[in-house]
Amino acid sequence: MDEFELIKNYFRKLTTKNPGALNLNDDVFFDKKYKIVLSIDTYNEGVHYVNFKNPELVIKKVIRSSISDLICKGVKPKYFLLSATGNKKHFNKKNLKLISKSINEEQKKYNILLSGGDTSVSKISSFTVVSLGISKKIVRRNNVKKYDDIYVTGNLGDSFIGLSILKKKININNKFNNYFIRKYFLPDLPIILHKYLIKIANSSIDISDGLFADLNKLINNQKIGYLIYLDKIPLSKNLNNYLKKNHKESLNFISKGDDYQVLFTSSKKNRSYIKRLAKRINLKITKIGTTTNIYKQRKIISHKSHLKSLIYQGYSHKF
Amino acid sequence: MDEFELIKNYFRKLTTKNPGALNLNDDVFFDKKYKIVLSIDTYNEGVHYVNFKNPELVIKKVIRSSISDLICKGVKPKYFLLSATGNKKHFNKKNLKLISKSINEEQKKYNILLSGGDTSVSKISSFTVVSLGISKKIVRRNNVKKYDDIYVTGNLGDSFIGLSILKKKININNKFNNYFIRKYFLPDLPIILHKYLIKIANSSIDISDGLFADLNKLINNQKIGYLIYLDKIPLSKNLNNYLKKNHKESLNFISKGDDYQVLFTSSKKNRSYIKRLAKRINLKITKIGTTTNIYKQRKIISHKSHLKSLIYQGYSHKF
Repeated sequence: MDEFELIKNYFRKLTTKNPGALNLNDDVFFDKKYKIVLSIDTYNEGVHYVNFKNPELVIKKVIRSSISDLICKGVKPKYFLLSATGNKKHFNKKNLKLISKSINEEQKKYNILLSGGDTSVSKISSFTVVSLGISKKIVRRNNVKKYDDIYVTGNLGDSFIGLSILKKKININNKFNNYFIRKYFLPDLPIILHKYLIKIANSSIDISDGLFADLNKLINNQKIGYLIYLDKIPLSKNLNNYLKKNHKESLNFISKGDDYQVLFTSSKKNRSYIKRLAKRINLKITKIGTTTNIYKQRKIISHKSHLKSLIYQGYSHKF
Repeated sequence: MDEFELIKNYFRKLTTKNPGALNLNDDVFFDKKYKIVLSIDTYNEGVHYVNFKNPELVIKKVIRSSISDLICKGVKPKYFLLSATGNKKHFNKKNLKLISKSINEEQKKYNILLSGGDTSVSKISSFTVVSLGISKKIVRRNNVKKYDDIYVTGNLGDSFIGLSILKKKININNKFNNYFIRKYFLPDLPIILHKYLIKIANSSIDISDGLFADLNKLINNQKIGYLIYLDKIPLSKNLNNYLKKNHKESLNFISKGDDYQVLFTSSKKNRSYIKRLAKRINLKITKIGTTTNIYKQRKIISHKSHLKSLIYQGYSHKF
């Protein structure tokens, strides 16, 4: 059974009296009265990160991945709590110094504050991060409208190449290996977008499991379809070069997740505003498709005018 | 290095601009303006619980242990989030049903609401629980006054016997084995006390690592000592019987933690009020000693009038 079935079958029914739990369907808890927005995520060595050889990068990745849950809801991340699990080797003095330094840098970069945590012993390292923001409103999932434009921030796919390099499945050269590995560990969070998202987005999610997996989660069982234009999906120059040189198709690289960009839908009437906004705040925001009124039409259109169907939909934990 | 040194040396300095982090010294985060009180705790198989043979009990223990952090601050636990890590064996259908049922029972028993979470794959099972309450005030640690009375709720030591039985270090008989094992998994949280604690307590903590370990954390580096009367420490009838039959001294059994009772200090002038309150709310509250003005006097006095010094101070994670 995958994690979504698990939640649906065993946990969702426990939250029927708790509107803030959002049916366990939105990656955050939201208490409207007290303006509390909370997310919790656990990252395990060997699953969410390959190993603990770069503690200074792992810790940044888990913090960014956590605050991404709030950014994509239009909420400013304010506080975070960190529960760190591991053994003497993980938490030797050298690593602790690196971890502490990284946390300090992330605090400054994103204007967030370490607010508590826990430390415990285990053979395998693991981190649980809780992010907390204060907001009267959030942008929900499953609130997509028909004929919305579909947007994504930043570039997709770099992170997956980085992971493949770390797993020794891909090897380019030192310079590009480093570029992609950094993108894997240090996603460029579109933090500034949190200020505008409530105004422009009907519905939103961050891309952690893969563009299409997350798009399907965003729409969920709404009676809405989509058309995505493969050629519109924003790729970095480095990824484009890699694909061309190696005669690879982008579709295999943009659906693997770990991008931590925001995927949102917005009414057509906002189109010119969003274009101007993107320029003004210096953030790459790309229209990659539209939603439709045909429930079962969830298609990706390539430049060859072929309709593609996806086999790999994205990452999910299997139990 | 133990967990306290780790926090002191590498993490505390990161929170100097964040008063709500309470110097990472109070097991909760407290945002006074937004009335948010948050705790986070991770529980690992093989460390915090022996194994996962009784998922229905493990899940109750981790939830109770988490909300105990709020109760002891005088805060009503309202919401909790649960991040569950494990594999197919941990989360098979039978276990998931038991876990779901247990969560439902705890929700009703303590009037708390599951509000979110995460599920992830790992070889070893692990749970992180976040508890959230809404309160304008909390009872702090490190606010003990000289000549305060020292109180503890409920009984101590049952849980440690239960753990020793689970580890096959102690074997009594089926009936008593079951009694103590249940006390280990299902601590009797003094939940009703949260309503009165802010009124009566100068300082408070829950006993998770051991009476004396937690008393020392409660006082920390305040220039205050204490006298604890060993004979006053509340023990269950079953534990008293066990000690008598086996000619064991209580001191070895009350310092091991996992009791999840509240330890607090209160001005002498509240003494008669607390006595009446305990009766009225039907909660065992026992005065076990007093604080003194002599910094280095941290002593336990036994019925034999001997002054004892403690060797085992309580549990701490070692890295």
